[in-house]
Amino acid sequence: MKLTPEQKQEIADQQSQKNPTKRVTSLELEKILYEALPVLDHGFIRVIDYMGDDSSIVQSARVSYGKGTKKVSTDEGLIKYLMRHWHSTPFEMCEIKYHVKLPIFIARQWIRHRTANVNEYSARYSILDKEFYIPSKEQLSAQSTINRQGRGNLITGDQAEEVLQILKDDATRTYDNYEKMLNERFDGSTIDENKAGLARELARMNLTLNSYTQWYWKTDLLNLLNFLFLRADSHAQYEIRVYADKMLETVKKWVPITHAAFLDYRIGAVHVSAKGKKVIQQMVNGKKVDIENSGLSKREWNELMTSFGFTEKIV
Amino acid sequence: MKLTPEQKQEIADQQSQKNPTKRVTSLELEKILYEALPVLDHGFIRVIDYMGDDSSIVQSARVSYGKGTKKVSTDEGLIKYLMRHWHSTPFEMCEIKYHVKLPIFIARQWIRHRTANVNEYSARYSILDKEFYIPSKEQLSAQSTINRQGRGNLITGDQAEEVLQILKDDATRTYDNYEKMLNERFDGSTIDENKAGLARELARMNLTLNSYTQWYWKTDLLNLLNFLFLRADSHAQYEIRVYADKMLETVKKWVPITHAAFLDYRIGAVHVSAKGKKVIQQMVNGKKVDIENSGLSKREWNELMTSFGFTEKIV
Amino acid sequence: MKLTPEQKQEIADQQSQKNPTKRVTSLELEKILYEALPVLDHGFIRVIDYMGDDSSIVQSARVSYGKGTKKVSTDEGLIKYLMRHWHSTPFEMCEIKYHVKLPIFIARQWIRHRTANVNEYSARYSILDKEFYIPSKEQLSAQSTINRQGRGNLITGDQAEEVLQILKDDATRTYDNYEKMLNERFDGSTIDENKAGLARELARMNLTLNSYTQWYWKTDLLNLLNFLFLRADSHAQYEIRVYADKMLETVKKWVPITHAAFLDYRIGAVHVSAKGKKVIQQMVNGKKVDIENSGLSKREWNELMTSFGFTEKIV
Amino acid sequence: MKLTPEQKQEIADQQSQKNPTKRVTSLELEKILYEALPVLDHGFIRVIDYMGDDSSIVQSARVSYGKGTKKVSTDEGLIKYLMRHWHSTPFEMCEIKYHVKLPIFIARQWIRHRTANVNEYSARYSILDKEFYIPSKEQLSAQSTINRQGRGNLITGDQAEEVLQILKDDATRTYDNYEKMLNERFDGSTIDENKAGLARELARMNLTLNSYTQWYWKTDLLNLLNFLFLRADSHAQYEIRVYADKMLETVKKWVPITHAAFLDYRIGAVHVSAKGKKVIQQMVNGKKVDIENSGLSKREWNELMTSFGFTEKIV
Repeated sequence: MKLTPEQKQEIADQQSQKNPTKRVTSLELEKILYEALPVLDHGFIRVIDYMGDDSSIVQSARVSYGKGTKKVSTDEGLIKYLMRHWHSTPFEMCEIKYHVKLPIFIARQWIRHRTANVNEYSARYSILDKEFYIPSKEQLSAQSTINRQGRGNLITGDQAEEVLQILKDDATRTYDNYEKMLNERFDGSTIDENKAGLARELARMNLTLNSYTQWYWKTDLLNLLNFLFLRADSHAQYEIRVYADKMLETVKKWVPITHAAFLDYRIGAVHVSAKGKKVIQQMVNGKKVDIENSGLSKREWNELMTSFGFTEKIV
Repeated sequence: MKLTPEQKQEIADQQSQKNPTKRVTSLELEKILYEALPVLDHGFIRVIDYMGDDSSIVQSARVSYGKGTKKVSTDEGLIKYLMRHWHSTPFEMCEIKYHVKLPIFIARQWIRHRTANVNEYSARYSILDKEFYIPSKEQLSAQSTINRQGRGNLITGDQAEEVLQILKDDATRTYDNYEKMLNERFDGSTIDENKAGLARELARMNLTLNSYTQWYWKTDLLNLLNFLFLRADSHAQYEIRVYADKMLETVKKWVPITHAAFLDYRIGAVHVSAKGKKVIQQMVNGKKVDIENSGLSKREWNELMTSFGFTEKIV
Repeated sequence: MKLTPEQKQEIADQQSQKNPTKRVTSLELEKILYEALPVLDHGFIRVIDYMGDDSSIVQSARVSYGKGTKKVSTDEGLIKYLMRHWHSTPFEMCEIKYHVKLPIFIARQWIRHRTANVNEYSARYSILDKEFYIPSKEQLSAQSTINRQGRGNLITGDQAEEVLQILKDDATRTYDNYEKMLNERFDGSTIDENKAGLARELARMNLTLNSYTQWYWKTDLLNLLNFLFLRADSHAQYEIRVYADKMLETVKKWVPITHAAFLDYRIGAVHVSAKGKKVIQQMVNGKKVDIENSGLSKREWNELMTSFGFTEKIV
Repeated sequence: MKLTPEQKQEIADQQSQKNPTKRVTSLELEKILYEALPVLDHGFIRVIDYMGDDSSIVQSARVSYGKGTKKVSTDEGLIKYLMRHWHSTPFEMCEIKYHVKLPIFIARQWIRHRTANVNEYSARYSILDKEFYIPSKEQLSAQSTINRQGRGNLITGDQAEEVLQILKDDATRTYDNYEKMLNERFDGSTIDENKAGLARELARMNLTLNSYTQWYWKTDLLNLLNFLFLRADSHAQYEIRVYADKMLETVKKWVPITHAAFLDYRIGAVHVSAKGKKVIQQMVNGKKVDIENSGLSKREWNELMTSFGFTEKIV
């Protein structure tokens, strides 16, 4: 991640603010506000603004519950209760805004989460930065042979070199041709004074999907957690998971009680189907179980055993 | 609007906070933060929290537009441009949270605006306040004879007295019976120690629709303006319009540039249909126009003339 | 549930249609299309329209997955896989529209589910039907002493009679006064020709919350299942649960494969927290477990044991 | 647009269905159901399913309005009234589903409309088709010198040839390298039996933004009209406008009354600001107007004059 001196100065200016407010503040989150936290080779996330903290969840739930809640002993108890019983609306009462720089093919996954507000850098209007995502060698995996949408073994040696060379060459060439068609370089300078450049909204179509874009992305805590549940998961593509992991760290600074409840009741939890429940019941009761009588498919059986770490029973 | 001493103290405590923050703040809005602004006889709105100000709209639009926007001269110019050309996403980058006390029949209109976050005081869990909306005499209108969902002339004299008496009596009696069924008074005290009260989730069904409820309501600036466009309008029911009017004042304090653009391009604007456009063109060109050749219905014709203040031409 | 002869005729007319279409149809759902299925004392649900069936989920998922899906053996396998792994978008590709008649205090719970389309009968515009929900004696429960928002033991004898009398009397009296203020009876006839009635939008505030309203409610299959997950649950209030149960029957007719997967992976499933998982692991491995070392609260412990039917271990 | 024989057969099979239904049907829309209507060089839209017609809007509005609406003379009158007065919910009661094939850079604009359901062909799971959008010579415009996000004069001659050659060459080369990295050709055949291919979720990043993708896209009529209002507009990029134009034709077949009202009250309408209204008033009253006293910026003044076709007054 490279920031220009101007960008660094703009961030420093924002961080030097010290405004008095009557609003609740999150001390830990304030410390990293505006900071560009690096992700992948050229990407970042920055927390730009936020509303509320753990106490705001309790506050709004207590309106919802009125006088009665006085008996609930602690904020932590209430937040855990709400999370455990799928109460959703109190978690919508906190809001956060990120500035994110990310490869376009990841942006296309990300935008599928619709309950968020987005302003993306417009390539109809401006020239995109000359930056492309090139995976590190540790991420150069072959197509999985067992999971149609996953990664398998690492690709190494000459084949790995060839892949990296292709990715670099093609991204560079298509970007150079993008500038040529625009008749304008990435820094805004004109190439040939006697020519008109192709419209930006057309020229951009020549760029590859690993080009970096950026956007402002704002959402409430509930929908952020839903995003993280799916994207900080081992089934998510690595290149979006690293963003989710970094965001999860900001959630911990922002709303630590909710973060702990989220780890316990969502991230680390197991969802057991009605049929799977019977298998667990039999196991606890010391009865012999096997896949034939379980009603589970082989895949389901293995997912169930794996989720509880009962590795010896996988078929 | 009556607040208990405890409630007054809680508000004062919140207002006495002075937290340092790196976030942008809205000076004028801070001044009225948490304050209970009275609406109707027992209702209020309170601004509980907010995120962003006018500059946040520009900031996110400029990410959207990137380097190119440096040429746009002022924030005001950009905000006006965005509003005029129906750009929506930058206005979603500001967020506000209200605590509202309002009659249930108004809450039922309000909740139809779905792009907001809501936590309502739960009558399954708690006892509702002993407060009902009784219209002032100035609001006691007859059914309109020309508008199926509007108000006509004022009802006065004995009939007005009778209406007010009915509303007061019925609300009081149904509330008293609510307490009786609950075996519990509004202050939480038990009526008959030897009896179990009816479940709250059942007893509440005896209350009338002018009972007051309350909720936390949070939305972004775009959806707030959409709400205000419909509810601060003369066609909206008076009892919701007074809430919208009060909220519009808070918008002015919060984002004054956006507020001015909203008045110019939405609240005070006229929407002219394709057929209506032809009529206006002819009028400007000094041609005689009449409803027969306009393709407009009588109702449309009058709406068009009224909207431009051409009263003499109404048929 | 009483329908007027006109309403019955309108339903019969709709049911007698036999239009040819190239769209997929659901044979079982067609059989009950438009039929008023009774719920509570005066309510109903009617399926008015639908789009798609089980095959539509597979069809859209296969576009999502492209050529690769040819290997997935059956529609059922794919639908179960999608449900198990929280894939949401394919289930959004089916849509259903209901006409529902329900008490207002239940409508207020229902409307909290925001991802649906709603048109409600307008009491600003029209007179509401003279119908109120009065619970059956089997539903007249006391407030629960252990659950702040639940029901406990049945109320019986004189106290039960008194409650029912109150509910009937208050609903009748407030409705009569509603007519008096409107100067119009429920059938549209005028009471006193020499008077103007109070505006409908005002008079309605005198009605009690057990008055019946009605609406058209349209949603996609994913959001319908989310609604049913929460509302067909034992923690939901009885008066909304009976609607959810009836709707679940229509889902079975409409998309039987999805319905079965929903029962297995949602309705009958157990969600085990990270801490709960460790307890189950120890139980399966024959180790002694107790609440002290589990990190679970007493409430959590009991919820876990109950969910697996391990009743003897409840503390 | 090329379809394989298998794809043509699948479409023909769907079109040969003749299922009886009690649901309302749209005769004109049924005629083109499933048909691939060509857009751009390789794209298409296909109507896959729909729910409701013009009468469904009236039906749901009449529940909303109850008995009272019997006096509204015709469906057309009601639909026009609803559209004119920004009533939104009745238009949400119709639903339509499209299958769309489109270039990725257009898909990225399209997906910004969030109130729709989407299933996209997954390049994590499958190989994308070997098809790229190459503009026709008539669309090869230079960047506009007056509109930062628009097109100006046509690029011609050698420069045009060079642009087209670049777009073709770069798309072809990056696709060939995509196959090479995958070790698999677009038809699914393996290139080198002794090698493992790069994971699909990685290899796809090498493709250019004019590659074609496809998705199922489902939305309600209200949100479809909002989409078309913005995208069938002259300010929209040509490459998305042609999709919107084609969809507008399907709306005409589906709900002809709503389509006509949409043209009159939205597409062909003029939105006049409060300040602009004063200018029009003065013009109608024969007073001299000029930009100085209007309070309008030069840009606003010109937009106002252009919208009414008062070309002689542009400054």
